[in-house]
Amino acid sequence: MELWDTVEPPAARRLVAGAVDLFAERGFGGASTRDIAAAAGLSPGAMYVHFPSKAELLARIVLIVHEAALQAVSAAAAQADAPAARLRALVYTLARFHAAHQRGCRVVQNELGALAPDDWARIRVERRRVEALFRDEVAAGVAAGVFEAADVAGTARAIVSMCVDVARWYRPGGPDSPEDVGALYAHLALRMVRALP
Amino acid sequence: MELWDTVEPPAARRLVAGAVDLFAERGFGGASTRDIAAAAGLSPGAMYVHFPSKAELLARIVLIVHEAALQAVSAAAAQADAPAARLRALVYTLARFHAAHQRGCRVVQNELGALAPDDWARIRVERRRVEALFRDEVAAGVAAGVFEAADVAGTARAIVSMCVDVARWYRPGGPDSPEDVGALYAHLALRMVRALP
Repeated sequence: MELWDTVEPPAARRLVAGAVDLFAERGFGGASTRDIAAAAGLSPGAMYVHFPSKAELLARIVLIVHEAALQAVSAAAAQADAPAARLRALVYTLARFHAAHQRGCRVVQNELGALAPDDWARIRVERRRVEALFRDEVAAGVAAGVFEAADVAGTARAIVSMCVDVARWYRPGGPDSPEDVGALYAHLALRMVRALP
Repeated sequence: MELWDTVEPPAARRLVAGAVDLFAERGFGGASTRDIAAAAGLSPGAMYVHFPSKAELLARIVLIVHEAALQAVSAAAAQADAPAARLRALVYTLARFHAAHQRGCRVVQNELGALAPDDWARIRVERRRVEALFRDEVAAGVAAGVFEAADVAGTARAIVSMCVDVARWYRPGGPDSPEDVGALYAHLALRMVRALP
């Protein structure tokens, strides 16, 4: 299941999937609209019906990935009822997401700088929501006396950063499944906040 | 002090510095050799005297960054005499390096896929040396009974990953100095291996 399987209509879905492939291979600057349209079996003119520019196509990809990540971690956190269980669920889910959707996440990370200012402003809101979930959980654990963290914001940022960077090094088909990576990272994150057993 | 300050002759140095700026701004695929040459005050023909292709210019940048990182962490590890002190020095140095040289490190991370196969093979050797330094140190600490890590390779990879990802989120001039980031990350890494106090 790819993150863009639900994009409608199918021509827009093919454009998104083709653009992810080409951006992954050549970068946003190196992929032409002509090639992206061809990958979706369309003429450049037909592409503009769905996406007025290559930058708007990138923005759609970035938005899909961020909304899916936010939805996944929010759902995971909602199922746990204590700071350690919630932090474990958040880290497991975010690390697994970046392994399971490595290619799309990697494109997003590499090409954020190519977003138009308005699109970047919107995405920043999503990113801050994800970061806030982690920071709030670290803070809640410290307040409850079950975590130790002198620098709550810096520790939460390091945990998110470690999960996000999975998309840089992870290779599908390697020895570790996305679930393996999620479990190890959840364990390491609980150690980072010195969660009491 | 930039990592390319010692590149000779000065025209090659200006090409490297200009290429890093343009790759950071537009990506490798989006930056033309004409623009890179212009940024260095040269004609495209004069650029080819120093770098036969844009890919070879990228390879030089990648090599400079990797050699400097390997040299920095090797020197740091050599000054400490026990696993915890060495791991602390390794993490402090690698995280600080990625903050202090954020721009160059970020370009390298984003554009590794654009390297020619031979250049990538050479760089992989450098990357594995860095990773091996961390893995060996985690293993040494476990063997000495001062670290706890069920998955030595995965834990070491997570520690390196967290340091490397500093180049993605760090902004020079923000509240944290490269030294602050290094100190926090060294502290977190020692917790990840449950270094005994």
